[in-house]
Amino acid sequence: MAEETPLVNLDTSALVAAQLLAERRLPALVVTNLDGSPHSILPASQVVKFLVPGYVQDDPSLARVMNESMADRAGDKLGSKRVRDLLPAERRELPAVNHDDTIIEVAAIMARLRCPLAAVMKDGTLIGVISASRLLELALQSH
Amino acid sequence: MAEETPLVNLDTSALVAAQLLAERRLPALVVTNLDGSPHSILPASQVVKFLVPGYVQDDPSLARVMNESMADRAGDKLGSKRVRDLLPAERRELPAVNHDDTIIEVAAIMARLRCPLAAVMKDGTLIGVISASRLLELALQSH
Repeated sequence: MAEETPLVNLDTSALVAAQLLAERRLPALVVTNLDGSPHSILPASQVVKFLVPGYVQDDPSLARVMNESMADRAGDKLGSKRVRDLLPAERRELPAVNHDDTIIEVAAIMARLRCPLAAVMKDGTLIGVISASRLLELALQSH
Repeated sequence: MAEETPLVNLDTSALVAAQLLAERRLPALVVTNLDGSPHSILPASQVVKFLVPGYVQDDPSLARVMNESMADRAGDKLGSKRVRDLLPAERRELPAVNHDDTIIEVAAIMARLRCPLAAVMKDGTLIGVISASRLLELALQSH
């Protein structure tokens, strides 16, 4: 039931991660440790934060009077960072499930952690992910 | 910059909402009030919760010993509910932006509310949404 997904690790360039989110229109990326084991989730909304200068985050009304060209520097700002620099201070736990778990087992974990993705493991290795929408599809198909 | 998205309102059948999430592989749906004004966001992970019987939510270890056919009843369970019944107790605020707001303005709002979607308004009417990944695409394009 696992779906393929692009993986990034803690040392991947932040610009590469942003491009993956943008090009594939993904709501979030799965982040692995350097050894390939699951680490956490990087939501697209978290990366968006790095488009916004600190003084606008503090006072959003300043965005109205800013020059749009500030956005042009987004690529530069992201290019100098790594995925580990983008992750929220409060880590978004990535639930791990086994490839032979039932739909109900995966649903129970996903619902408890309110997470849109779960890492699918086989023999200790990450073989893909399953998204909440894919899980709904499987549940409604079997109906 | 608005993207088209399927809209559901508070009275839409929960089964229809689940099918939209599943078929289009959406991470979340935009929920409107009955008058079409934006209400909130319904994440797919929230709908997944309704696949899981209450006693398994309380004790996830029971999922292992359950019969998979419980998932077969997902359609029935959802069919008797409406979108308003699925929404989390803690409402996920849907940020609203104007169709002529700049990328930075939208980014500032989305980052502050940590929301993957914003409702795009024109003359007081919801004309679409913009996702965090679409915003990244726009920011990186202009680079």
